[in-house]
Amino acid sequence: MSRSILTVPVQKVEGEASAPFQDLLAVEEPLEIRLGQKTVSITMRTPGHDSELAVGFLFTEGILGSVGQIQDVVSSKNCVTIHLKPGIEVDLDRLQRNFYTTSSCGVCGKASIEALRMQACPVLAGESPVFASTVIHGLPAVLRQDQRVFDRTGGLHGAALFDSSGRLLLVREDVGRHNAVDKLAGAELMAGRIPLDGKLLLVSGRASFELVQKALMAGVPILAAVGAPSSLAVEAARRFNMTLLGFVRDGRFNIYSGASRIQ
Amino acid sequence: MSRSILTVPVQKVEGEASAPFQDLLAVEEPLEIRLGQKTVSITMRTPGHDSELAVGFLFTEGILGSVGQIQDVVSSKNCVTIHLKPGIEVDLDRLQRNFYTTSSCGVCGKASIEALRMQACPVLAGESPVFASTVIHGLPAVLRQDQRVFDRTGGLHGAALFDSSGRLLLVREDVGRHNAVDKLAGAELMAGRIPLDGKLLLVSGRASFELVQKALMAGVPILAAVGAPSSLAVEAARRFNMTLLGFVRDGRFNIYSGASRIQ
Repeated sequence: MSRSILTVPVQKVEGEASAPFQDLLAVEEPLEIRLGQKTVSITMRTPGHDSELAVGFLFTEGILGSVGQIQDVVSSKNCVTIHLKPGIEVDLDRLQRNFYTTSSCGVCGKASIEALRMQACPVLAGESPVFASTVIHGLPAVLRQDQRVFDRTGGLHGAALFDSSGRLLLVREDVGRHNAVDKLAGAELMAGRIPLDGKLLLVSGRASFELVQKALMAGVPILAAVGAPSSLAVEAARRFNMTLLGFVRDGRFNIYSGASRIQ
Repeated sequence: MSRSILTVPVQKVEGEASAPFQDLLAVEEPLEIRLGQKTVSITMRTPGHDSELAVGFLFTEGILGSVGQIQDVVSSKNCVTIHLKPGIEVDLDRLQRNFYTTSSCGVCGKASIEALRMQACPVLAGESPVFASTVIHGLPAVLRQDQRVFDRTGGLHGAALFDSSGRLLLVREDVGRHNAVDKLAGAELMAGRIPLDGKLLLVSGRASFELVQKALMAGVPILAAVGAPSSLAVEAARRFNMTLLGFVRDGRFNIYSGASRIQ
């Protein structure tokens, strides 16, 4: 299971104390799933059991009807190609989406980060704003207080925007955490407040690559997650000079990148 | 916020006692996002702030560059259409996927469930297996025990398969909970053990519509989640005679459908 876990140096903040610490991250990398020459999915996943993931995905999405339709399964780094037996036809329309076939199989995490740059994702400038650790310790309680009103289901993810004084600016909720962030970003965009200079975005769950991407596009310099970040989230945050905080709860948090914005 | 929360009758099990209870669910419904005539995304979301979600999605995915490109935003039930100003061109290739344009705007949750039926998703038969509530109370500890070995990151979702004696058959983990389930389903399919008659699938997070769909395709009669289910997950489970359990932790759980399989 070594490929599924990565060790990174972080700053561990408890109360007002801070110390270096080796943290373990769940690895997140893209996997390309191919049926013959055709790319049917590119999904972010944790490496390991890739063939099972590809076969299981095609089966639970209704593309494959049985294992007897499979000729062979070829797995290489970040790519699984499934060849069907001669004469077996499947209906890819069930996926309701098509991927462009890329010439080289196996996109890597680095390529995903590079794609952000191509997408004109800005490298965040400077070191401001500076958030005090005492302010950050207080943020989850503010989000919880607000969620207590709206989320009586236990099933909603929250995304909340704060200024450096710890003032709550906006909260959005959704069953999907990426949707909660999109709702918040859309509201700020329509209000003419993008990029979100000087702000901190707190999310109630974990920090994936996708959330870092969305925060970057919105120009928010600090992304703080109540849960754990993935390896690719940390890598992308470092590449774009974003401050990424994880495990923000119970008076402590880890700084995965951009420590200069934290006092 | 009334549309984002739904009340449903459930059986609340604590220890060996069981009582009817009114539970609140986060609503999950598909939202179709259109750019003019073209469908660019169909995403499962909680209704509310739909225009913000659509605009935010297009912006954070790099399709829209600024709010100034937008002519108007038209929101109807489960569909948001964004019209761009004359002369504005956007690059949909950035999404790396295309949706087929459907003729009527605004797919509903019922249509999503109907699509499962069309996909030959089987309605689960009979009332067996029967799992004792005492067995179910013990499952999260078994999953945690196993996750303690593999997940030292706090960032991995787990999916575990059990038989009715509470014996752990297989565990898979991933940063994405749908991937953990696909890995497990793929392994069982390749081992010739699909459909998963008589088994229970435990997932470490929440139960979404997508997870119910995948469990149905694998033919597993009982889906148990440590977290909350969504409204559409419950609706789909009921439609297909699946037993759905939520909040399985701390010696209690809620039965959202298929109570006859629980003793």
